[in-house]
Amino acid sequence: MLNSVKKIYNKLTYNELVAEKVILIPGPVELSAKVKESQTLAIMVPTDPRFVLTFQRVLRNTRKLFNSENQNAQPFVMSGSGTLGWDVVGANVIRKNDKVLMLNIGYFSSSFTKTLQLYGAEVKELAAQVGETVPLQTIKEELSKTDYKVLCITQVDTSTAVLSDVEGISKIAKEVSPDTLIIVDGVCSIGCETLKFDEWNIDFCLTASQKAIGATPGLLICMASERFLKESFSKRASGMFTSLENWYPIVKGYENGETKYFATLNIPLICTLDVALQEIFAYPGGLEGRIEATRKTSERLHSMLCNELGLKLVPKDTNSTAHGVSVVYHDDPQSIISYLNNNGVIITGGLHKDIKSKCFRVGHMGYSACDPTSGHMRQLTTLIRQTKNLPPQQHLK
Amino acid sequence: MLNSVKKIYNKLTYNELVAEKVILIPGPVELSAKVKESQTLAIMVPTDPRFVLTFQRVLRNTRKLFNSENQNAQPFVMSGSGTLGWDVVGANVIRKNDKVLMLNIGYFSSSFTKTLQLYGAEVKELAAQVGETVPLQTIKEELSKTDYKVLCITQVDTSTAVLSDVEGISKIAKEVSPDTLIIVDGVCSIGCETLKFDEWNIDFCLTASQKAIGATPGLLICMASERFLKESFSKRASGMFTSLENWYPIVKGYENGETKYFATLNIPLICTLDVALQEIFAYPGGLEGRIEATRKTSERLHSMLCNELGLKLVPKDTNSTAHGVSVVYHDDPQSIISYLNNNGVIITGGLHKDIKSKCFRVGHMGYSACDPTSGHMRQLTTLIRQTKNLPPQQHLK
Repeated sequence: MLNSVKKIYNKLTYNELVAEKVILIPGPVELSAKVKESQTLAIMVPTDPRFVLTFQRVLRNTRKLFNSENQNAQPFVMSGSGTLGWDVVGANVIRKNDKVLMLNIGYFSSSFTKTLQLYGAEVKELAAQVGETVPLQTIKEELSKTDYKVLCITQVDTSTAVLSDVEGISKIAKEVSPDTLIIVDGVCSIGCETLKFDEWNIDFCLTASQKAIGATPGLLICMASERFLKESFSKRASGMFTSLENWYPIVKGYENGETKYFATLNIPLICTLDVALQEIFAYPGGLEGRIEATRKTSERLHSMLCNELGLKLVPKDTNSTAHGVSVVYHDDPQSIISYLNNNGVIITGGLHKDIKSKCFRVGHMGYSACDPTSGHMRQLTTLIRQTKNLPPQQHLK
Repeated sequence: MLNSVKKIYNKLTYNELVAEKVILIPGPVELSAKVKESQTLAIMVPTDPRFVLTFQRVLRNTRKLFNSENQNAQPFVMSGSGTLGWDVVGANVIRKNDKVLMLNIGYFSSSFTKTLQLYGAEVKELAAQVGETVPLQTIKEELSKTDYKVLCITQVDTSTAVLSDVEGISKIAKEVSPDTLIIVDGVCSIGCETLKFDEWNIDFCLTASQKAIGATPGLLICMASERFLKESFSKRASGMFTSLENWYPIVKGYENGETKYFATLNIPLICTLDVALQEIFAYPGGLEGRIEATRKTSERLHSMLCNELGLKLVPKDTNSTAHGVSVVYHDDPQSIISYLNNNGVIITGGLHKDIKSKCFRVGHMGYSACDPTSGHMRQLTTLIRQTKNLPPQQHLK
């Protein structure tokens, strides 16, 4: 195997090639051994009975992933990424001049706004200070003042590690503006933060395969409520591939064990997703157990970073601090990123324009955060501790 | 390995599980051993120097795949499928009431029309009879009569196996309507039919990973001319994920060996595509050698089907008969499909509404068509010959 790898990457030095590093960025994440192994399972036609069973199980497990039991809600899995999920919202429910309220807690909320504007939405942003959420009272006032068709919440913004109170916000929305569709960007939260799709009256939630779910990048995974589907089907979608009306018979069919064709299915990645989802529900305590394990891992990390090393997290309040990603202020973030990279652990730099050069970002989701035998968190914390005792120059390459 | 597979697919009988069948549908196709093996290479971050080299090589080889040397044209590779490629055309160059001429040779041309209509295009279809192409003279008259912004050609429609004369059509377009953008749907042709992007003045060509290229399903691959890009960049795209303006700095960056971020890249499938593309150019005679091998394979198959078994192909003219897919009239197509399936070879049924129950379809692209050591074509022809000597009842399960 190594020989063929060497042939393929023949321009790299042997050291660059064999030095497998631990990936601790906020996605793509490290894969478990089983998920890795599953990558070769997947040479099947879409009508293969094994694939039908696989996709059926994936869709059923996707319902569980979103805590949804309502059979009129529908999960969708398609080739793409989280970004395509914003397009799915725009293409299916936005008509020209529709009013959208966006709770902006970072870089990804801003991109979500830009996407919906492409579909003609009039987006009002309530922007939080960096590291903060929008106060519930402000949201309540805004929703009372104007009729919004859509309310968008980024559950965790990967650029700030701020965690939104989706439950609190959706309660308010239901109270003061019950007709507003509640959309959640769950890219950096599904699988590592609690989201109760049915109970919290969520209408649409999107996520991607390469984060807390622990699969490979390349899939958009989403869940739509009956109300969202009804609104989608009431107009012609402004896209072919993004149209839920086109995908609905396909996913409904596979869930019932029947094959249907609309566009080519991403068979290999769906097979990998299947194993990743099975692993989530086989974990002690299932999905909740994984979320709890991720929470504990992040609390230990944050305690070390803040109490032991005196660093400061970007999120200002522990109640609105994410558990699958940490964004940490640092005087010289590049030095710590380089030191870790040179010693086998990949973390990454800032993304949000206001704090880009002032922080580093670490992902701790999925296998790395939930399976202590991976040793990834120990490796991370050991290296971060070492940076404390080095003069700044030595951090650098 | 078998144990873990058995555990995953535990509802299937052992026979269903181990009976690996040869896939000869018009995509997804069988993978070569090297492409299969490459599926496990891909646990990398987007900034990994190995991935940067990989994606760089993929993009450079994609230019060669389309026979394009013009550095102002640009290849793109994104998560998706051929269907998303139609959206890319719509989102980037179609404005409300733009005139489009669609040469309709089957099911996929019709879907392309529907997609562009979603973006506001006024589409005029010149529809060929089933099995035929639109006469060049008719195209010439139509292009002379009306100013079309866009002309769409399906090089091979998988529902009819009709092959368009893209060179001839584009020559006419250049002559009578030089400002018209020429778009080619090359999903079932790139890698197994000749397309000269620069020489034939093509402005946009889309294809997908799971057909003649011989990789796994899940990627949209396309090539845009300078003129197409200019038109795209002159308006705001009507989609975020589909916007070439958003992807341009990313693919340009990776081609130059730099990493840039817009949306999550499909790292595992790009690595698989890399190996598939390398295999194409390592084939004796390179891309042309593969195309020639596919042509010879299809000619042998067609001779057997028509001369020996007396069957009739759907395409009426050998000059407009595709080489990577065969659509064959048959009195009882389901019997032949079942017989082959029961004996280890998967082919498929009709798709075009007018001939759905009157034909079967066979794919012969990539590894199966180009590497005689696969034995796939021999297996196929042996089984088809056997059906001739069986009474109709015995074909069925």
